[in-house]
Amino acid sequence: METTTTTGPADHAPGDYVHGYSGREARRLGDQADTLAGLLHDGTSYPAGSRVLEAGCGVGAQTVHLVSRSPGALLTAVDVSRGSLEQARARVAASVPGARVAWAHADLHDLPFGDGEFDHLFVCFVLEHLPDPRGALAALRRVLRPGGTLTVIEGDHGSAFFHPDCAHARAVIGHLVALQAAAGGDALIGRRLRPLLAGAGYGGVTVSPRTVYADPGRPALARGFTLDTFTAMVEAVGDEAVAAGLSTRAGWDRGVAGLRRAAGPDGTFCYTFFKAVAVNPPV
Amino acid sequence: METTTTTGPADHAPGDYVHGYSGREARRLGDQADTLAGLLHDGTSYPAGSRVLEAGCGVGAQTVHLVSRSPGALLTAVDVSRGSLEQARARVAASVPGARVAWAHADLHDLPFGDGEFDHLFVCFVLEHLPDPRGALAALRRVLRPGGTLTVIEGDHGSAFFHPDCAHARAVIGHLVALQAAAGGDALIGRRLRPLLAGAGYGGVTVSPRTVYADPGRPALARGFTLDTFTAMVEAVGDEAVAAGLSTRAGWDRGVAGLRRAAGPDGTFCYTFFKAVAVNPPV
Repeated sequence: METTTTTGPADHAPGDYVHGYSGREARRLGDQADTLAGLLHDGTSYPAGSRVLEAGCGVGAQTVHLVSRSPGALLTAVDVSRGSLEQARARVAASVPGARVAWAHADLHDLPFGDGEFDHLFVCFVLEHLPDPRGALAALRRVLRPGGTLTVIEGDHGSAFFHPDCAHARAVIGHLVALQAAAGGDALIGRRLRPLLAGAGYGGVTVSPRTVYADPGRPALARGFTLDTFTAMVEAVGDEAVAAGLSTRAGWDRGVAGLRRAAGPDGTFCYTFFKAVAVNPPV
Repeated sequence: METTTTTGPADHAPGDYVHGYSGREARRLGDQADTLAGLLHDGTSYPAGSRVLEAGCGVGAQTVHLVSRSPGALLTAVDVSRGSLEQARARVAASVPGARVAWAHADLHDLPFGDGEFDHLFVCFVLEHLPDPRGALAALRRVLRPGGTLTVIEGDHGSAFFHPDCAHARAVIGHLVALQAAAGGDALIGRRLRPLLAGAGYGGVTVSPRTVYADPGRPALARGFTLDTFTAMVEAVGDEAVAAGLSTRAGWDRGVAGLRRAAGPDGTFCYTFFKAVAVNPPV
């Protein structure tokens, strides 16, 4: 069961999210979360009764894992997109019947919560899209009680490498990074989580790499991650990259074909996520 | 205690090993092995009485960990360099007094052992230097009993990324990869261990990524790995890279300085090794 949807800011403009808001993109995010849940959520479980805020829940791809792994926690999930919140609500209702989540439409920089209202914050695949991730982290810290924890998970597209190596495939990944930068984000943010969190006033920052490696011996991962997550993400911004003059259509298609070969019978693919846990210093 | 040194081929020409054979290089390899031992050797322990061959033991940087973790195994260590074998013998005697290792001077492609003489093979940081790694793996398989295991560990310099990002630092890593390729090796071999092993006739290949991440919260790793292992390795081939016309001295120094910044107060450094375990198929 879900509870209130707090009123919030005007809805987010679809163009602001580099991956778009299509149904296909929602499925991609769901596939990604399911494939990676064990790797990314390992070590994240909140005590019964603790007040947890998921900041930037999107379509709820991570929310379902949060409620499954911390069934007694009091979870609030916020997002800047009303459409995403509706999908998240539906996803949680379908995946974890009976789960209690408070949904709120809000901007991370202007959260409708009191100081120190939460024991724990969880932020996954959000900072990479923000022009001012350090400012967002500082704004989040306001609603975290002193001594409470923040968990941040982000990828880093510069961590991707594969066999057979392919200059076209490397190029399209570079174009995706450039598009995300042009939209104000940073697809290489994983490597700088530690300085970001320290700079936003958090203490006790520990960062761990979470590396995904897929080869023909792990066919579910080769399909679920190499093809349906990473390659699909690249493929989805092809029109935009061509329109921006970063690539020709033929060049884009060669790059995507190169990524697909990494999921072939002799292929391998490697990508590293980063998970940071930090503490709001006690007063 | 150590046992016999089998006679073998003419000694290896120093120029054939891209990192050289200096005392400084031997210390670098020792630092690397100690810093990474937990990460790389985790899961590798051989039963008492089992016959284990370390192929390409070099200066014994990994040998000391093999004998420590498998004290009852019957270990034979071979290398193509007599000088390295002497250093390996001295290192093991100093680090693990009483350890029993049979040392042999031999070429991996022409091992002085009978068919199926070993229960397990261990090969670490060797294939990256060989012009024909698949041929070497096939030659090794001859001396492994059917049903016996092969363990291979290799790095992949294309996995390295860091904060702050630095084009000069990326360039010097690329030059190191080019030098190793010119010497007949492949510094990007980690990503293709699976197809290599499968192509050499091994079965049941499982590959796991072993990612090293260093930041100021892990000062021993930032020093021991980012500086004393990776940056030292790059720095050591500077003269060769300049002589080969790959870089100017100033360009090289800028690249090395960029790598050093990754071990600084806001820096991070990430690198992925690969560990493969495979089986010589039962007849």
